[in-house]
Amino acid sequence: MVHNHPLDQLSGDEVRAARQAVLNARKAHVLFRNIYSVEPAKAELIKFLNAEHAGTLSPETPRPPRRARVQYDVVYDDRSHEYMESIIDIATGKEADLRRVDRGVQQSLTVDEFREFNNVCIESDMFKQAIKDLNLDEKFEVAIDPWPYGGPDVGEVTPRYTQGLCFAKLRHENPDTNHYAFPLPIIPVMDTYKKEIIRIDRLATGGTEDGLASGTVGEKVLEHCRPAEYVPELLDRPVRNDLKPLNVLQPEGPSFTVGDDSLVEWQKWRFRVGFTPRECAVLHDVHYDGRSVLYRLSLSEMTVPYGDPRPPFHRKQAFDFGDAGAGRAANNLALGCDCLGVIKYIDAMLVDSEGNPSLSKNVVCVHEQDNGIGWKHTNFRTNRAVVARSRELVVQFIITLANYEYIFAFKFDQAGGITVETRATGIVSVVNIDPGKVSPYGNVVSPGALAQNHQHIFAVRIDPAIDGHANTIVTEESLPIPMNPKTNPFGNGYEVVGRAVTKSSAIHASPFTNLTVKMTNPNKINPISQRPVAYKFIPSPSQLILADPESIVAKRAAFAHHHIWVTKYKDHELFAAGEFTNQSQKEVGGVADAVARNDTVENEDVVVWNVFGLTHNPRVEDWPVMPVEIHQLHLRPADFFDRNPALDVPANKNLSSVEVGRDTDETCCHTDVTTNGSGLVQAAPTTHLQGTGSIPMTDVNGQ
Amino acid sequence: MVHNHPLDQLSGDEVRAARQAVLNARKAHVLFRNIYSVEPAKAELIKFLNAEHAGTLSPETPRPPRRARVQYDVVYDDRSHEYMESIIDIATGKEADLRRVDRGVQQSLTVDEFREFNNVCIESDMFKQAIKDLNLDEKFEVAIDPWPYGGPDVGEVTPRYTQGLCFAKLRHENPDTNHYAFPLPIIPVMDTYKKEIIRIDRLATGGTEDGLASGTVGEKVLEHCRPAEYVPELLDRPVRNDLKPLNVLQPEGPSFTVGDDSLVEWQKWRFRVGFTPRECAVLHDVHYDGRSVLYRLSLSEMTVPYGDPRPPFHRKQAFDFGDAGAGRAANNLALGCDCLGVIKYIDAMLVDSEGNPSLSKNVVCVHEQDNGIGWKHTNFRTNRAVVARSRELVVQFIITLANYEYIFAFKFDQAGGITVETRATGIVSVVNIDPGKVSPYGNVVSPGALAQNHQHIFAVRIDPAIDGHANTIVTEESLPIPMNPKTNPFGNGYEVVGRAVTKSSAIHASPFTNLTVKMTNPNKINPISQRPVAYKFIPSPSQLILADPESIVAKRAAFAHHHIWVTKYKDHELFAAGEFTNQSQKEVGGVADAVARNDTVENEDVVVWNVFGLTHNPRVEDWPVMPVEIHQLHLRPADFFDRNPALDVPANKNLSSVEVGRDTDETCCHTDVTTNGSGLVQAAPTTHLQGTGSIPMTDVNGQ
Repeated sequence: MVHNHPLDQLSGDEVRAARQAVLNARKAHVLFRNIYSVEPAKAELIKFLNAEHAGTLSPETPRPPRRARVQYDVVYDDRSHEYMESIIDIATGKEADLRRVDRGVQQSLTVDEFREFNNVCIESDMFKQAIKDLNLDEKFEVAIDPWPYGGPDVGEVTPRYTQGLCFAKLRHENPDTNHYAFPLPIIPVMDTYKKEIIRIDRLATGGTEDGLASGTVGEKVLEHCRPAEYVPELLDRPVRNDLKPLNVLQPEGPSFTVGDDSLVEWQKWRFRVGFTPRECAVLHDVHYDGRSVLYRLSLSEMTVPYGDPRPPFHRKQAFDFGDAGAGRAANNLALGCDCLGVIKYIDAMLVDSEGNPSLSKNVVCVHEQDNGIGWKHTNFRTNRAVVARSRELVVQFIITLANYEYIFAFKFDQAGGITVETRATGIVSVVNIDPGKVSPYGNVVSPGALAQNHQHIFAVRIDPAIDGHANTIVTEESLPIPMNPKTNPFGNGYEVVGRAVTKSSAIHASPFTNLTVKMTNPNKINPISQRPVAYKFIPSPSQLILADPESIVAKRAAFAHHHIWVTKYKDHELFAAGEFTNQSQKEVGGVADAVARNDTVENEDVVVWNVFGLTHNPRVEDWPVMPVEIHQLHLRPADFFDRNPALDVPANKNLSSVEVGRDTDETCCHTDVTTNGSGLVQAAPTTHLQGTGSIPMTDVNGQ
Repeated sequence: MVHNHPLDQLSGDEVRAARQAVLNARKAHVLFRNIYSVEPAKAELIKFLNAEHAGTLSPETPRPPRRARVQYDVVYDDRSHEYMESIIDIATGKEADLRRVDRGVQQSLTVDEFREFNNVCIESDMFKQAIKDLNLDEKFEVAIDPWPYGGPDVGEVTPRYTQGLCFAKLRHENPDTNHYAFPLPIIPVMDTYKKEIIRIDRLATGGTEDGLASGTVGEKVLEHCRPAEYVPELLDRPVRNDLKPLNVLQPEGPSFTVGDDSLVEWQKWRFRVGFTPRECAVLHDVHYDGRSVLYRLSLSEMTVPYGDPRPPFHRKQAFDFGDAGAGRAANNLALGCDCLGVIKYIDAMLVDSEGNPSLSKNVVCVHEQDNGIGWKHTNFRTNRAVVARSRELVVQFIITLANYEYIFAFKFDQAGGITVETRATGIVSVVNIDPGKVSPYGNVVSPGALAQNHQHIFAVRIDPAIDGHANTIVTEESLPIPMNPKTNPFGNGYEVVGRAVTKSSAIHASPFTNLTVKMTNPNKINPISQRPVAYKFIPSPSQLILADPESIVAKRAAFAHHHIWVTKYKDHELFAAGEFTNQSQKEVGGVADAVARNDTVENEDVVVWNVFGLTHNPRVEDWPVMPVEIHQLHLRPADFFDRNPALDVPANKNLSSVEVGRDTDETCCHTDVTTNGSGLVQAAPTTHLQGTGSIPMTDVNGQ
């Protein structure tokens, strides 16, 4: 593979070269965690991108050097590990930089560590005894979900730990039987490097009447539990048979193109899809119609603290990007993306623990979809309606974190808008609860299974480049004006008050003043409105982290205390909760520290972090797999263009649509068979409406 | 047409019978406004519906009598009007009730009044002089948009008025040239019944420097304005040619049925689509899988106050349901709905000013759409992904109010959810502004055209029937617990505090406490969670009305001061801002008055009103037709079911989807041709990817 672009992922050969360089330099037992491309410094990359956009790229254009970041442990003879990072210059094979990281911090978990945790548990006498004490029925085996250890308690000094939530799984011919229906009230804790179970935490199983006490873990903790299957072949009721196919066909193919270097072009949009093991898909250099909008857009972090105060549930707090890595947890989508229409998949280059390249197929998908009416006006004088549909381009990835799934999508529309969508789905985290009890800390979603109340708090990192890199963030609020003869004689007036953010800041959402965040370029004035060109968004006023500010849970997620953080751009400052979240006791190097630098951010290279979330107090309907909970962040142009950018979207009638109409014979429907603009004949199906009964179809597509 | 159901619209014959009954009774000159079916009293209707759901309907089942509400003016010889309402018993042709309405209130505007306003202006010497004073270029003619007069000022006693926003329209061979680009700084006011222009209000055209003063209306108020066309054939740039067709095909037809009596059945949902001239589509008797969810669901009211304090702009305040009537303003959708897939249209029975039936075709559309992934889980042990798409049923209508459009949709999903969606689009209301000036009261979106800041505040009326009619509304908030050894030793715990609404109340949204409104049935307990069955929603914390509480603007929209109103059910109490909004000076008989009754609403027949809005400070991108601004209200089951109701949605791969894949030859894409569950062969198109260039297609559907 020839690498044309500095934002390309590493090739297999480049991974191998970086691996070898580290092995040569260390001459030790190395356990590889990640090898991936180092994003060039912005100052360097901009020069290249400017030449690219100006159309002046040539073989002589200086290119930022290709560099790999290699993250690995050196394993010493005493089984101790030292975590290091090397920056390898690919062209020379030289180690350009070596960073020996303080042993007090922990890198994210790897799949190998997950696997090992399971093995260590199974062979641990302590664990075996704990399971024996539970006196499980013969029909069960044990299934363990490895989790990050959460934040150690005040004063607790921990080596690298992994903890596990344990479940009983029916011995079943079907390996996809759902073990989450049978939660076991123990959490084993492993010393990760020593590969030893050092403790088994016993979990409370009580209800409201038991307070924080452990409840009465009975002899038969699972007797009252019952299966909760979700794979179709195990369902206890038939699947619906009245859902008829709805097919999206794109007879002329998609309207987008994806180049080998992950350059995506669609409807005046042009951007690159990058990938990192931690963030998964990252968007770079987002342009609309030749104008710069964003330098970089990424999901930065999320934390999921559980609100059950009974220890050790305070350590159920995952940082799914920092503790696990969204890129490494990403689904291979051909297996189950099941998007409609024409789909393009993008692969990701990962490595195994030996440092060998391992291509993860189909990690990101790109497709188009219809999102209803985009704009419409009917002239009531002539009855002429002009209506344009809204087509969207979706760049999507899906991550699985043990029981839970997140679906992340960047959606581009034809009106210059970008939406960052998150969908939460998967299986809610449950713990055992005694028969007949209910709990203030969650909801019983299945007999014996308490789904604990929790929050999901996300951070999106927006690196704007609104017609250039010097931008100013402005907050705008709509405020009442008291009725007065001079400025508001009839009391209907209100004012829009804008404030430029001059210093790096944390800002709260304020829905009742309609607080809007504008990312402006004060150096470029819209000639029509005479206001600076801008993109804007209204930050969702989600509930922020509920944990006590003095708690470890809250301190390690300082980012979760404000909806907006405005910081000055700094190379490689990408993670809202800091670089090392796994087993952290407080946020270090995250947005709070960045804001504390008190940088000037007016007319500067500025970064905006948007924090939003979902307080999830589960419903029975969230079981056994929850319907998606959707959140959308909308970035929209505000005086960036000279009109509605979607005004030139063709307002054609879609000729494949069919009306279930009424003819003289009310039981028969008419059919449109018409010619579309491209000269192709679209044969629409014939429908026959029979009273209020079902509507059988004859497919006339030549089949 | 045989009428089977008490919720059916009137037939043409019924309209004629009602009309004749009124003419017989009044023996006067009658100007008809509306004739439509009277919804039976709930107590009566429930008996019928219960029999219907029990399957015990028979010819002997008592039916509520068919009744028509006839709204009309009696026009006296002195040209004065008296507004009356008759209730006509259809079977007997008798006037069951007559209501002579106080002349101090005004019924909504009719299309005829709109038309007359235009004629009266054109013939008015005062208006002609005002236009002459503007010294318009020969190339223009005048176009007038009739508006409701807004709220008269304190102490102003008004007969029925209509006001008009005036524009210049290019004399053009194309009647759809956009006159809104040329706003004229006058508002004529008509005495509606006398058909006389009684005043011409002169509008300020100044900018920031002019304050409330009128600005300097120049000799040539339009010289700096420029065309802003939106109909495709008049665009000054070509439409996009790179948007390829995206077709939704339903080869086996839709999954829904719509009966003659507008009974809709789809995916365990069953409800009736009713229609009124004021509310447009109304949903009745909404059931899921045989269980009652809602008795009635409707858009109740909206108000659009403008925030420009310069008089007379304080009278730019429309109540689009009460002043105009959403049903009468509804688009005939076949003209421009352009939904995808298989669409069923529903007609509406209206009347002309003679009281004759006038069928408005295709006012409501029903279709299915895909809304992305509905739920997904991947078993990381086996890599088995199970994913179900979310299919939605959409019941949609679109209203045009002069310059502006609203798209309203009720969406049903397979997980028991109902979404009420509003999309705002159309042309923003603009007024003239002097050359080169900008204004604090809006944004210059086109030279000479100031789009004024305004709000849209909507009210949705939800009449729940959660497993029956005795329901209790509960608010739930998630609140922090200070860290303390006894109940929250590590500080991660939080509590969910529920409060039953015992008396009719107004409630504010509270996003930072995650305030959730639960509509519960305290008499039915979910056997799994042991909590009352419920539906819930999180009220959007939209900005409420900004006008000074003492202003007429605010007083006539008391409903716009709170997000949630909880009232005791009362027959025919349907309108959040009261029955008569046109020219009102305060809200009478709206939700505030209903709450003031201080009714007991616990375990009672209760109604919930949700108010939400959009503060719209226009962008240049909103011109000349604005991209949709979308708001969604989600009603979701909360412990209503015993599991995720969508668990039985088939998790099949959609076989018509195509992967733009990579084979050994990177320029060629592979094609899936596979068999779907129904035995039909879906031939997917073949794509040929040529580098990053275009992707030509061969349609293989036998054509």
